[in-house]
Amino acid sequence: MSSTPDVQFSKRLTIEQVEEGHELAPKFDEHGLIACVTTAAGSGEVLMLGYMNAEALKKTITTGEAHYYSRSRKQLWHKGATSGLVQKVVEMRIDDDQDAVWLRVEIPGDASCHVGYRSCFYRSIPTGEGEAARELHFEESEKVFDPKKVYGDAPNPTIL
Amino acid sequence: MSSTPDVQFSKRLTIEQVEEGHELAPKFDEHGLIACVTTAAGSGEVLMLGYMNAEALKKTITTGEAHYYSRSRKQLWHKGATSGLVQKVVEMRIDDDQDAVWLRVEIPGDASCHVGYRSCFYRSIPTGEGEAARELHFEESEKVFDPKKVYGDAPNPTIL
Repeated sequence: MSSTPDVQFSKRLTIEQVEEGHELAPKFDEHGLIACVTTAAGSGEVLMLGYMNAEALKKTITTGEAHYYSRSRKQLWHKGATSGLVQKVVEMRIDDDQDAVWLRVEIPGDASCHVGYRSCFYRSIPTGEGEAARELHFEESEKVFDPKKVYGDAPNPTIL
Repeated sequence: MSSTPDVQFSKRLTIEQVEEGHELAPKFDEHGLIACVTTAAGSGEVLMLGYMNAEALKKTITTGEAHYYSRSRKQLWHKGATSGLVQKVVEMRIDDDQDAVWLRVEIPGDASCHVGYRSCFYRSIPTGEGEAARELHFEESEKVFDPKKVYGDAPNPTIL
């Protein structure tokens, strides 16, 4: 890995360059972040939606392992460093205006969510006609792992 | 649709309520937006990453058609109103801390991207060892539709 030079981003000059070109010219938001959708390479299930800063994006590209920026801990986050659930990147894509990334990953144990479920998106929202208060349905019936055993006393990243 | 009451959101009170409960208590960011991943219900392909304000989220729930908030046009965006590529929601999910939504949708013509491709994520980024400037690869070889014919003179939503 040490022989791989730091990834460089191109300047965003024209819409044609950004949308139709071959240059990597990501757009970071006012917090220096770019959104990242992560799906299971096998099933196509959406596992999580995370954010990357420039460093996390570069490290993901060069190492082939997903790195994010933790907005709650305010630091680079090598996913799986604590839990062992490292995400190996099978394919990495970027969208039309280059302000979002899509990772297709493989994970040992096929689990991703800090709550213990396979996907962070373990609940569905009923659509169509219905009550004002929509009751969420659990689409995963049981947890894949016990977060207390995996994370111990680490603070919960959810912010109210 | 007129008989369906306006969707109500619960207040976010505890982490357990937000992560493990049945109440819909979405977290909007400082711009009043929540991120939304949209995938093709059939293939699992990620089509786009959009954003919803409270109104867009409520309209998506009650109508079963994807509504977003256009950050470039600064208005509610009923996807497909111009192009005809309306997204019918097959399933709608929300993530652990309820700050992201996942829509599985069906689209006539199976196209989603304003540039004319099926998915907005039509280019991949090579990972692993390599050059500093990574050359993007086109994963879709041709456009599904001609954006000029579909959108005419409408301004391009990409912001540099």
